[in-house]
Amino acid sequence: MTDGSPAPAAAPPRGAELPIAVDAMGGDRAPAEIVAGALLAAEAGAPVLLVGDPARMGDTGGLEVLPASQTVEMHEDPGRAVRTKKDSSLVRAAEAVRDGRAGAMVSAGNTGAAMASALFRMGRIRGVARPAIATIIPVPGLSPTVLLDAGANAECSPAWLVQFAQMGSAFARVRLGIARPRVALLSIGEEPGKGNPLAKETHALLAGGAGGPDVEFVGNVEGRDVMSDAADVIVTDGFTGNVVLKTLEGSMKFAMKAVLGAVGGPGVPEEAGAALLGALMPLAGELDPETYGGAVLLGVGGVCIISHGSSSARAIVNAVEVGRRAVADDLVGQLRRAVAASAEGPEPGE
Amino acid sequence: MTDGSPAPAAAPPRGAELPIAVDAMGGDRAPAEIVAGALLAAEAGAPVLLVGDPARMGDTGGLEVLPASQTVEMHEDPGRAVRTKKDSSLVRAAEAVRDGRAGAMVSAGNTGAAMASALFRMGRIRGVARPAIATIIPVPGLSPTVLLDAGANAECSPAWLVQFAQMGSAFARVRLGIARPRVALLSIGEEPGKGNPLAKETHALLAGGAGGPDVEFVGNVEGRDVMSDAADVIVTDGFTGNVVLKTLEGSMKFAMKAVLGAVGGPGVPEEAGAALLGALMPLAGELDPETYGGAVLLGVGGVCIISHGSSSARAIVNAVEVGRRAVADDLVGQLRRAVAASAEGPEPGE
Repeated sequence: MTDGSPAPAAAPPRGAELPIAVDAMGGDRAPAEIVAGALLAAEAGAPVLLVGDPARMGDTGGLEVLPASQTVEMHEDPGRAVRTKKDSSLVRAAEAVRDGRAGAMVSAGNTGAAMASALFRMGRIRGVARPAIATIIPVPGLSPTVLLDAGANAECSPAWLVQFAQMGSAFARVRLGIARPRVALLSIGEEPGKGNPLAKETHALLAGGAGGPDVEFVGNVEGRDVMSDAADVIVTDGFTGNVVLKTLEGSMKFAMKAVLGAVGGPGVPEEAGAALLGALMPLAGELDPETYGGAVLLGVGGVCIISHGSSSARAIVNAVEVGRRAVADDLVGQLRRAVAASAEGPEPGE
Repeated sequence: MTDGSPAPAAAPPRGAELPIAVDAMGGDRAPAEIVAGALLAAEAGAPVLLVGDPARMGDTGGLEVLPASQTVEMHEDPGRAVRTKKDSSLVRAAEAVRDGRAGAMVSAGNTGAAMASALFRMGRIRGVARPAIATIIPVPGLSPTVLLDAGANAECSPAWLVQFAQMGSAFARVRLGIARPRVALLSIGEEPGKGNPLAKETHALLAGGAGGPDVEFVGNVEGRDVMSDAADVIVTDGFTGNVVLKTLEGSMKFAMKAVLGAVGGPGVPEEAGAALLGALMPLAGELDPETYGGAVLLGVGGVCIISHGSSSARAIVNAVEVGRRAVADDLVGQLRRAVAASAEGPEPGE
């Protein structure tokens, strides 16, 4: 990928490609659907390392397995789970990345626990105050939008949001190939004075250049701009970001269901419905969050892909692919440089 | 000027229905579209009082006019505008309600200035810490959802959110006829421990009964529940609420455009497209925010309807109707009782 940034000073050793560690036990449909996805990914040529309890995974079709006897459940307290379940698939997957046995980890399990595993085992990129979850929002017909933080930090400081701008910008360069991503701040009005104290202070910092030369700050955007071409990267706190993401998810699901209901309803000839479905399917496919295969935890010392809890086998295939590309593009190195380049920026505080 | 003072003790004379004061100068399409809407509303039988600059309103078709020589522009600072433009249509409309010359006010203009006019001229309901904007989110096929605060207070305290729960509950009873509305708190997980400090503290208060016996608290909901049947009233701070509302607006607009594009695109026979449009139109109509005619400012001593800045004549007709119904249903009295009934609740603080 040619993102316009200089090539890495020292390329990582190019030998055999490291496998992607897939947490077989995480997700609403684990382990069957996750294992099925891992198998499909492997068939398509991706090296995969399944992490989980061999007794519960069923037939793994000859995939390499890293045994882990414990499972972090979806609603467990993340911190406690990671501290107490040291032989869980999540912790073992993160360790595999840390130890150079895997190139990236993928999990559709407990998001908080996946974050905690990655953070505790891979560590933080030097200078990063808080890792953030970056999600790609598909906008059919237009370029997608990177939204962060999508839920890692329910409460944020302005300095953290400035770092999210730096990391989000680097992520959009690497992942979407946008040479100079337009970075916006989510608020409730375009004017700098609009918003809550966090938005106002962050606006002042970013407008003052605190993001450094690589952050092209274009000002505030509103909720209606998330599915538009107003910005490539939208920065917000993890509470607002998570609410936005789930609101979009709910409304798109609702709209699709309502449209399909109208198409299949009385008054619409069967062949008309069929023709419309044919026209709508590509749209539904583009809008499907599974298309982008999962969110990426930015700021930790390795690649951690967080998939939707309801992930299907196809979502896992895409997530594995996202992980492979992040490794190939040296995403972590790019993030490291993005954060280091702005060392003259404000010191990230608590 | 009677800023913050209680409404006149003497009840307005009950005889002829008071007119709805329509701010002719507020909105992206003012005054022409607003005047057109007022005329349509009057034709349909609503008593209307047009407030604005007679020189700029054009033909008002014989409607009663309350002259106001000034106009608050869309992006003016609300507080300053209301202080300095004492002869603006917004301020005069609020005064008409205060003085018993109108039953309610309707404006599609500067939202902050409409709020400030209503607050400064009509005063606050006794015991209300902060007025909030309540919006009705249409959910075709299911009962609509009341969302508040949709933008009046960018930063909120837990005690204010408890009051929003009380006011939102009373509003849903009056406006939607729901005997015992289910009130939920917007957060980023269903568990009480999920969310930012505001959400966690508010959850503890509401779960502990701080809303009083009339608030049926059903716990946290997530963004995906806004367009679902999970709750009748969703409470949040004005920053998050405004972001959610605009995210919904943007995504629904996007979805409709995309679907219509698919219907009219290649591969769909013309007659099939026409049949589909016929099936989709009722859905589009139900989803149109104009259907509900505007948001209501809850907590001030009179009825103030805040319409979308882009309001069409049809939106104004609906807003006038919302205003009439709020007056007929004694919404302000109901809110007064809802807040007074829970006087044993926490004292609303700053």
